[in-house]
This record gives sequence, structure tokens and C-alpha cells, in this order.
Amino acid sequence: MIVQMKKGSTKREYEKLIEFLKSKKLDIMDASSDEVRVFGIIGDTTSIDPSDLYAFEGVKEVTRVSTPFKKASRSFKKSDTIIKIGNDIEIGGDQFVMMAGPCSVESEEQLRIIAKAVKKAGATLLRGGAYKPRTSPYAFQGLELEGLKLLRKIGDEVGLKIVTEIPSADLLPLFEEYVDVIQVGARNMQNFHLMKALGKSTKPILLKRGLSATIEEWLMSAEYIMAGGNEQVILCERGIRTYEKYTRNTLDISAVLAVKELSHLPVIIDPSHAAGRWNMIEKLSLASLAVGSHGLIVEVHHDPEHALSDGAQSLKLPKFAAMMDELEKVAVVLGKKLR
Amino acid sequence: MIVQMKKGSTKREYEKLIEFLKSKKLDIMDASSDEVRVFGIIGDTTSIDPSDLYAFEGVKEVTRVSTPFKKASRSFKKSDTIIKIGNDIEIGGDQFVMMAGPCSVESEEQLRIIAKAVKKAGATLLRGGAYKPRTSPYAFQGLELEGLKLLRKIGDEVGLKIVTEIPSADLLPLFEEYVDVIQVGARNMQNFHLMKALGKSTKPILLKRGLSATIEEWLMSAEYIMAGGNEQVILCERGIRTYEKYTRNTLDISAVLAVKELSHLPVIIDPSHAAGRWNMIEKLSLASLAVGSHGLIVEVHHDPEHALSDGAQSLKLPKFAAMMDELEKVAVVLGKKLR
Amino acid sequence: MIVQMKKGSTKREYEKLIEFLKSKKLDIMDASSDEVRVFGIIGDTTSIDPSDLYAFEGVKEVTRVSTPFKKASRSFKKSDTIIKIGNDIEIGGDQFVMMAGPCSVESEEQLRIIAKAVKKAGATLLRGGAYKPRTSPYAFQGLELEGLKLLRKIGDEVGLKIVTEIPSADLLPLFEEYVDVIQVGARNMQNFHLMKALGKSTKPILLKRGLSATIEEWLMSAEYIMAGGNEQVILCERGIRTYEKYTRNTLDISAVLAVKELSHLPVIIDPSHAAGRWNMIEKLSLASLAVGSHGLIVEVHHDPEHALSDGAQSLKLPKFAAMMDELEKVAVVLGKKLR
Amino acid sequence: MIVQMKKGSTKREYEKLIEFLKSKKLDIMDASSDEVRVFGIIGDTTSIDPSDLYAFEGVKEVTRVSTPFKKASRSFKKSDTIIKIGNDIEIGGDQFVMMAGPCSVESEEQLRIIAKAVKKAGATLLRGGAYKPRTSPYAFQGLELEGLKLLRKIGDEVGLKIVTEIPSADLLPLFEEYVDVIQVGARNMQNFHLMKALGKSTKPILLKRGLSATIEEWLMSAEYIMAGGNEQVILCERGIRTYEKYTRNTLDISAVLAVKELSHLPVIIDPSHAAGRWNMIEKLSLASLAVGSHGLIVEVHHDPEHALSDGAQSLKLPKFAAMMDELEKVAVVLGKKLR
Repeated sequence: MIVQMKKGSTKREYEKLIEFLKSKKLDIMDASSDEVRVFGIIGDTTSIDPSDLYAFEGVKEVTRVSTPFKKASRSFKKSDTIIKIGNDIEIGGDQFVMMAGPCSVESEEQLRIIAKAVKKAGATLLRGGAYKPRTSPYAFQGLELEGLKLLRKIGDEVGLKIVTEIPSADLLPLFEEYVDVIQVGARNMQNFHLMKALGKSTKPILLKRGLSATIEEWLMSAEYIMAGGNEQVILCERGIRTYEKYTRNTLDISAVLAVKELSHLPVIIDPSHAAGRWNMIEKLSLASLAVGSHGLIVEVHHDPEHALSDGAQSLKLPKFAAMMDELEKVAVVLGKKLR
Repeated sequence: MIVQMKKGSTKREYEKLIEFLKSKKLDIMDASSDEVRVFGIIGDTTSIDPSDLYAFEGVKEVTRVSTPFKKASRSFKKSDTIIKIGNDIEIGGDQFVMMAGPCSVESEEQLRIIAKAVKKAGATLLRGGAYKPRTSPYAFQGLELEGLKLLRKIGDEVGLKIVTEIPSADLLPLFEEYVDVIQVGARNMQNFHLMKALGKSTKPILLKRGLSATIEEWLMSAEYIMAGGNEQVILCERGIRTYEKYTRNTLDISAVLAVKELSHLPVIIDPSHAAGRWNMIEKLSLASLAVGSHGLIVEVHHDPEHALSDGAQSLKLPKFAAMMDELEKVAVVLGKKLR
Repeated sequence: MIVQMKKGSTKREYEKLIEFLKSKKLDIMDASSDEVRVFGIIGDTTSIDPSDLYAFEGVKEVTRVSTPFKKASRSFKKSDTIIKIGNDIEIGGDQFVMMAGPCSVESEEQLRIIAKAVKKAGATLLRGGAYKPRTSPYAFQGLELEGLKLLRKIGDEVGLKIVTEIPSADLLPLFEEYVDVIQVGARNMQNFHLMKALGKSTKPILLKRGLSATIEEWLMSAEYIMAGGNEQVILCERGIRTYEKYTRNTLDISAVLAVKELSHLPVIIDPSHAAGRWNMIEKLSLASLAVGSHGLIVEVHHDPEHALSDGAQSLKLPKFAAMMDELEKVAVVLGKKLR
Repeated sequence: MIVQMKKGSTKREYEKLIEFLKSKKLDIMDASSDEVRVFGIIGDTTSIDPSDLYAFEGVKEVTRVSTPFKKASRSFKKSDTIIKIGNDIEIGGDQFVMMAGPCSVESEEQLRIIAKAVKKAGATLLRGGAYKPRTSPYAFQGLELEGLKLLRKIGDEVGLKIVTEIPSADLLPLFEEYVDVIQVGARNMQNFHLMKALGKSTKPILLKRGLSATIEEWLMSAEYIMAGGNEQVILCERGIRTYEKYTRNTLDISAVLAVKELSHLPVIIDPSHAAGRWNMIEKLSLASLAVGSHGLIVEVHHDPEHALSDGAQSLKLPKFAAMMDELEKVAVVLGKKLR
């Protein structure tokens, strides 16, 4: 951290700040000149929020020069983290992992039809919401426990691992029992109570980026989970909120590259929530593969008109199969394994 | 809701959608011309998400013409809701209610010093974080239950009602016991699990706007609480996330006017989190009063340099008292009661 | 400017950069430790764009510690700049200057009715668009030269100074002839060709903030004008583009405070374009006064339904007069002169 | 356009609005029910700004159901527009057109080295700034006319067409003489004075998206040029401004898909300005190809450390050649012609 004092700040103000920092067991590297008083702070600054230093009078600018996350950081661990799910799935290496399924689990029949189709097309994980965080209290809220059980049943029957969203920490025991990958929804990314609980989980966590989370905040939420002891975190970019309203969100495809620079954790893309329009999914999926994402999570439905949620962004089954064929062509030349 | 079909959409597509809507007990008001097929949907459309209708082929545009919230809506209840706290405080009427206190409860002594000072200056509620949602897992997380007890003790001693943030639903019984107003933090605004729990609370809820929540989403979260049976919701604008980084957030002062148009619920402003800089608080507070906010929640500290959080945006005690005097002058000419 | 090198960067990389900086006549203040190589750059760094230094291999982070603007900076000139218009108007001091008038000049009669009314209510400048930058090529584009002449004529007749928007540099001679204050529209804020031309103007410039300009970029545009020799720049906040769509733009009221910290130039607010809704204007105007703006520019119309542009955000004449009375009450207690 | 009146609006208010619309030669399609008064407006509504109708009392909501642009619209012209440059280049069809070169033209030697390298690697257009719109008045402003002449000379010598940015309308004659494709910079996208001038140009226009322009506003600027008679417009996505600061801008890759839905015009991507970091260019270029962009415009430099602008985002020559090889592999499987 580098601190610059204001012109006209007093020696007393400077000393007060130095005292405070030393009380935190931090060292000071002074770099002041005649013109400007500036110094670096040496040591483990992760417990200091740069903005707190502005409370000291005389401080002009505080600049962080190391990341606020440790375990999630590329400088902490150089090699890419690869997360294994079952015997065959590895997220973070050369596999381009496909997670697909309905927005909501609606019935056993619905789930079986969709699961069989996505399995046949080459997906390896089945997604589907059991507990649905809906903007409106009057909208369908999911089958809840019944949905978890159906996911487990159909996943085992068809041969797919399952991933679904956890709404709150008190349900963690159920998720531990039924689920292979626990998803954190965008709206819960900074529910730190939940992050702490997931730090104790034995399951990989799929951590969606918040609606307007910075990349740094997103990695800080991963850090919460890792600090608790669970280092199996998969990041998922799902579009951010901007002024542009043609798409539901703006897919920040560069975030994949940023995460790979800053962290060793795997990162995938959710094109369905990003676009909110089924007819954009195929092209965005191709772009996600090309940019270096480790996989995709996609909404598909056999009958989107009657889906209980997110019909507008769900691919029909034949379109999903066709998309997989397109992805395959590009995966081959890029040295990625899709199926 | 008004639905417009695409040029070239088929009669079959149109009929499929009409069938679906009728199965939902909704009526259709056709307004098609030779050129364009368009119709209105009549009835209670709150359970339909407009975006779901886009799953139907042939649909071009769906426009909502009523708000998705009911109980929170001005058209549901014309008169302003006034929320009483104790015998003297009324939020939503002519009082300009001042809530003030430290970011975090740090010790009994700290809290007593600050509480006495803000009481003397004219505040009626004491704020202070006991459970602190921090971006970093390595930062101070609050005194937790000990903090709640201190708030209750000092509040009673000094004669202030208390307001503090709840981090998760499982702590609700403690908050019911110790707290007068339960605050929902910006990052939890769409933690629907928590919203549902608060619907069963007997306490008024101070609902902060999410970091990038639309006004409509914010009112939908209020609706969750109200739908559960608790109609005592106070909204709190605290700045939204924009591209501008000079201030911590961008205070959306117009949101106060929007809320008053759309809803009957009271709305206050948190200038401390909006600006993130103590030297902007006084002027933003004056602007909040002038724009018609029902009150303020402000961070103050007797020693911000050594505050365990948010020192940069905390007012010192004498500045707070001076600000109250400035506010008094304007309140008088605007017909608002500050003290 | 402070430069931090990457861990693992080489001595050669460091030396290459130092050489480059010395070739620019800049001095180096080394502050490296065993752990991290970091140094400050001393001298006039305004001609260096920090982002250019990232082109050097080994550079991790470049932090600017002084503002990129000079003449517009508060550290360049401590005292507030006060801009005189005619004998009576001073912008930047204790006057709260009111500019009012129609969005577009439509006819002599329209302009006279409005001008008389706003004069009577206490405005001192008449606004009105002669050249209208419209999003659509098919919309009314203004009366152009005829509009300028009408503004001059009616302004003189009624006793108001006039302010109107210049669309391009080639029209500057006409604006010099007819206009008292030359307005730069939000969409032209970074039309640097125009900024350079205005640097040669003898008239005060009203510089609107761009739709998504940072405060720093806005001050850099002021710097362009000042660098050209014209130091009479009035800044105008008019709302920024955010994800929130209830209002046309989001009024960034804190920007007034930021400008006053960073610069000595006066700053006013345009609540009409910020809100886009006439029924919010009065309250936002009161808030603007309370926050410390040096004035307002407001759209008023005697018949907004038939206005050729921006009817939705225009105040009717009696509402404007009523608003002036409200403002007067608050101005008095704040020590500002409105009329 | 569909208009909904407020509950409680009067018959007189309704009639006043109908009268106004009829005076504009528009027809009304009433769709009112007992509950709500709502009607459609039939005819050419492009000259009406929906927001103007809000000036009429009693209006609750105005919804546009057709695009405000005509000539640029896909419904106006179904087939993709293909723009020819010289004998060999076609933008808008199966070619993936590569434009490459330095940010600024710095010298004849610099331009020749870069031009030869990009030509050899497979680019067909040479980019390079002669007139540079810089945020700071103290930064290098370009070689101006000398730069145009160098571009023409080197382009002809090496066998590349040239594309460069026009800063203002008065320079159009020079650009007509020297340039093959005239670029409009992001900051000038709503410089309507310039748009009108370009409507009279005989050259194709490369229209960059504004820093925070909506897709609709961007197409409206294309409409300005087309309405003036020049239908050769190539759109260029270059990243939009968001709250995320890790990248210079956020590349809105979905915008390519949106433009292709809404318009028949070709659309390319500028990954250099979007990312602002050279090490992201290759992957973003691959993603651009995969998403269906018609080409790229990329900054390359033989010596980015000493570039006079934008060094941080310029690819070195060998990296550019390597990237072209990667693109070739993907282009082949997607049926696109790169070289």
C-alpha cells in the first residue's frame, strides 16, 4: 500500500498515521521528497481497508499494490487449479465442461426428458433450480427439497453430475447430501454468512459473479470460501448490469481473461443469464470457448413456452444438440476436449 | 401487460400464447390492426414475468403497464404510511428523523460517548453495526451478540431507539429481542430467504437499496416483506454503483422522489455510504432534507482514525452537532420537524 | 506518478523505463525495498498518460498522484473563480443564478411569453436552443440562425442575458455576435476540436458534463478551453447515464461537491435533463441549492404539450414562479442571493 | 407506439392528446377497456419522440413498438449490406476483415515497418491516427495533414487500404482526398453536425460506438449518415463504460448479435480499446471471430514502449502474426475467409 499525504499536511498528522500502522505490526518505507510526503506500507496489509486510512487527516491518496485476496491469488499459487467432479470431469484444464438443464426443476418427467437429451448431446453436468430466488414473491419459488431429490435421482439414472443453487446456509446439510456442485447465485455473492458456511462444505462451489460485482469483489467472495477451508471454487461470469437494455445483462467476456491473470481458479460462463435471449446463446457459447473459458452452464428446455421460469432464454433440445456440434468443431482446433 | 407480435408471426403462434394466458385465468383485449397484431392482458398479472412470454415464438415485445408490486404500491394505498417507533418517533410524516452512530459497535465506552453526543445534538435513533458484512474475510467482523447487547443497554441508558443490521435469517430471534428497527444491508436486499423471514417479524425493517438495484427491484424486496405480513418497511437510498469513482457510490437523490411517486412507504437517505467521504456529508444531508427525504442515517465517530471500519466516512462529534444546526435552519422553512 | 514493477521483472526492464522517463526530462525518486521495486516520477507529468507506461514490460501498476489538469485545478488557484455576465450577474459567489427558458426556440411569440415570465419570477438568463442536437435526423433541428437572432432580440427587450448551445466550431463567429454565454452540450463535451475553438472565444462557456464523463474528464475538457486562453468556464452537472431507467439520467448531486474540491470553477445543475420529468424539478432544484450549486438551468414552457422538444421535462410558467418562491425561502437561510 | 393513460385521467386530457396526434397525420387504434384507457398510434411515428408525449397530462406510459431508425433497420432491408473497398475487400459477408496499424502515425519509417508486417500477416487495411482526439490538451495531438499523406503513401506502397479518424466536419475534403474508409471516433458518435456532413461523403464510414451509447443510439447515428445519402456505414463495437475498471472498457460482445438482428449493416470489433491491455487482444479477437463479427480493427506497434499513444494496448508485430495464425485455424472451421 502506498500512501501520499496532502500538500500542507502537518508532521503531526503524518506521525499519527505512522504510529497507527506500527501498532498493526506494519513497516514503513519512506519515499518522501522535498515536494511530497509519500511512503509505502510493508507487511501483511490484507486486514487493512485502504479506505479506512482516509479517516486520518492529511491523507491524500492510498493505493493498494497487492491484491486483497491471498488464497485465490495467482501469486499465491502459480499453477491452474483443477477441480475434479466424479471420475471423469475436470474443470480448470483442457476440458470444456458443459453444464445444461432447465432453469427450474418442474417435474420428474420434464427433468428426465431434458437430462437424457443433454447427456446425449455431450453435457456432463445437469443444472436445474430446486430453490428459486425470484424477484417477485408471487412467482414460482421452486419444488425445493422435492427438486433436490429429483435432481439426484435423474442425475444418477442418466449418468450426469448435478449442480443447483443454494438459497441459504441452513440448507447446507441437504445440499451436502444430494448435490455434486453447489451453486451460489449472483444475488447471494456477497451474502458473507453463506460464504462462511460454504467454507466448511466438502463440495465444489460454483460462485456466480454478482450483478454488479467487480472482479476483485468476486475473488474476495471466493477468498471467504477458501479461507474457511474449501478451496474448490469455480467462478462463473453471468453478465453484469449496465445501462444497455437490449440484452438482459452485458456479458463481460474479458472477465474470463482477468480471472485467469489474477487467480488460479477455474472460470466458466453462463450465456443464458447474460443474454436473456435464446437466439444469442449459440454464438456467445462459441465466443466463450474461443476466449478460454473452462466451460459453460446453459439453460435448455424441451418446451420453453411452458417453462415455469426463464423460458425466454432457454434453448430447445435440438438447438442445444446443434450447438454442441458447432462447439466441437472449434474445440478441436483449439485443443480443448468438449465430449 | 401489452403484447406485440412480430411481423410475419403466424396465427398458430398467436393462438398458442392466448391459450396459455387463458389457462392462467387472464383475459385478452385484442387491439390488432391490419398492420400489427397487438393485445392487452387483463387481470392479475403479478405472477407472470413479462420476460417469460418471450419464450413464445412470434412475440416481439411485452410491456408491463402496472407495477409488479401490490402492497408496496401507491395505487394500493393512497396515503403515506407512517411508521411509529416508540412513543415519539414517526417516520413518513413531517418529522425529519435522524439516525446516527458509529459504523461498528467497538466497546461500551465508545458507544456511550457517541450515543450521548448524538442524542444531545438531536438524533432519535442510535445506529451501529454488531454483525458486520465485510468484503474481506480478514477484516473485523463485529462484536456480534455482545454488540447487540451493548446497543440495547446504551440505547436505554441514553434514551435512543436502536437500529442495526441483520446478517441472516437465523439470527432473527435475537434481533426481535434486542433491536427496535432491523436493518437489511445493501448486499442482502435480494436475499429472498431473509426477506421472507422478515415478513414474520414484528419490528420495522429499514431496507437499504442494493448496490445496483433498480427502484422497482427495491420495491419488490419491500413487497416480499409485506407479502409475509410485516407492512412496516422504511426504504433507504444509500448510493448506487456507477462508473464514477470519485465518490464511493453515486447518491441517487431522485430515487426519493421516485419512491414517493410509486409507493406509500417512507424513504430516508444514508449519505455516509453514498459519498464515502466525511467532508461531503453535511451538504448531502441538507440536499436530502430539501428533496423531501423522511430522515437520514449517518455515521459518526468520536475518533474516526481509530474506528475499526468506515473511518473515512464518519463525521466527528462536533461536526455532527454543527450539521444538525444547519439542518434545523432549513427544516424550519420547509415545515419539517428535526428535533 | 508512482510506478510499481512486477515481481520477477528484470533490472533491464526497469532501466529501459527509467531511460525513457529521463529522456522526457523527468526525475526519479526510488523507493524500492528488497521485496518490491517501486519509484516515484517527479516533474511535470501532465504530458504523460499513465496508461502508456504499461507498454513497458515489467510494469505492474502506475498511479497518478497529481491531477492531470492544471489551470482548472484548485491547487493552481485557491480562490473561487467568479464569472461576470453583464453588470449584475456573478456566477461562482453568493448568487444562486437562475437560467430558464424553453428547450427550443420555436417562435418570437413563444420566446417572448416565456422570457417575460421567467424574468418576472426572478431568472437572470434566458436559455433556449437554436441549433438542436437531436438523436433522430427526422426530429426538429431548431430554427438555427433565426433562433439566435430571436434570443438576442427578446433577451434585450426583456432584460435577460442569453445562453444557448453551439453545435460546432464553425459557428463560433455567429455565437460571438449574438450570445452572452456559449453552452457546450453533453454530447460534445469531448469534441476536442470544438474545445480548442472555444479556447479562443471571448465569451463565458457553460460546459455540460458528458453523458458518462468522469469528473476528471469533465475538468480535462475545461482545461482544453482554459489552455487555449479562455478561463471563463462554468461547469454544469446534468445527470449521468446509469442502469436506472425511472429517471432519464441519474443526477449526480455529489459532483457539485467534487468539483468544488478539485477546482476553483463555478458549477451549476440542470435538473430538467437529469430527471426528464417536470414533476421532479422543484425538489431537485431545492436540493441543488442546498448542496451548494452556484445556480440552475431549467426548462420552462408556457405550453409543454405543444413544445417541439422536451415537453416532458418542462415546467409550466406558474410552477416555475412557485418554485422560485420556495427556493427563495431556503436561499435566505443559507445566505444565498436568488433574486 | 402504444400510449396508456393514468387511472383517473380525464376524457379531456385524452382528447387533447388525440387531437395533437391527428394534427401530425397519425391514426389512432383504440384498445381501451373499462379498466384502462390505452391506444396505439399508427403511421410514421419516427418524427415523434415518445418522451414528448409525457408532456400531456394524464399520460402514464408510452411504449415504442417500432425502431426509430428506418434505413439502418433490418425490416427496411432484409439482406446483409456488403461494403466494398477497392477490388478485393468486402465487409459484411464471409470475409473476416483485418484492419491493423499503430494508434498514431508517428513517422514514415514507423508506418512503413508496421504496414509491411501487418500486410505480410494478412491484414488488408492499415489503421493509424493522424488527428488524435486526446483527453489532455498537453498530450501529442497527431501529425495531422502530414499523417494523412503518410498513410496514403505507405498504404499505396505496401498495398493496403487505409482507415483513419476524422475529428471534425471541416476536414472532410482532405479525408475524401486521402482516405479509403473514414472513421468516426467514439467521442464523436453523437456529433450530429459531423454525421450530417458524412451523409454527403462518397467514402465508407467506420462508426465507432460511443463510450456509453445504447445500441439504438448507435444505429440512430448510422441513420443520420444514411439519411444524408451515404449508405456505406460499418459499425464498430469498442467497449462500453461500466463500473468495472480492470479493463479499460467492457467489451460488449453481444452487441454484434444485437446489431445483426436490428440492422443489415456490417459490424466489426475493436478489441484494443475495449481491453486496453495488449495481452487480452488475441483471445478477444478469437471470441470476436466466433461470435460472428465481420472483422477487427487492432492496434499494433513495432516498439510500443516508445509509441506516442496507446502503447499499453498495442500488439507487437510477432504477436500479431501469431494471432493471425490462430484466427486462421478457427476461421476455417467457421467458414470465414481471413486472408
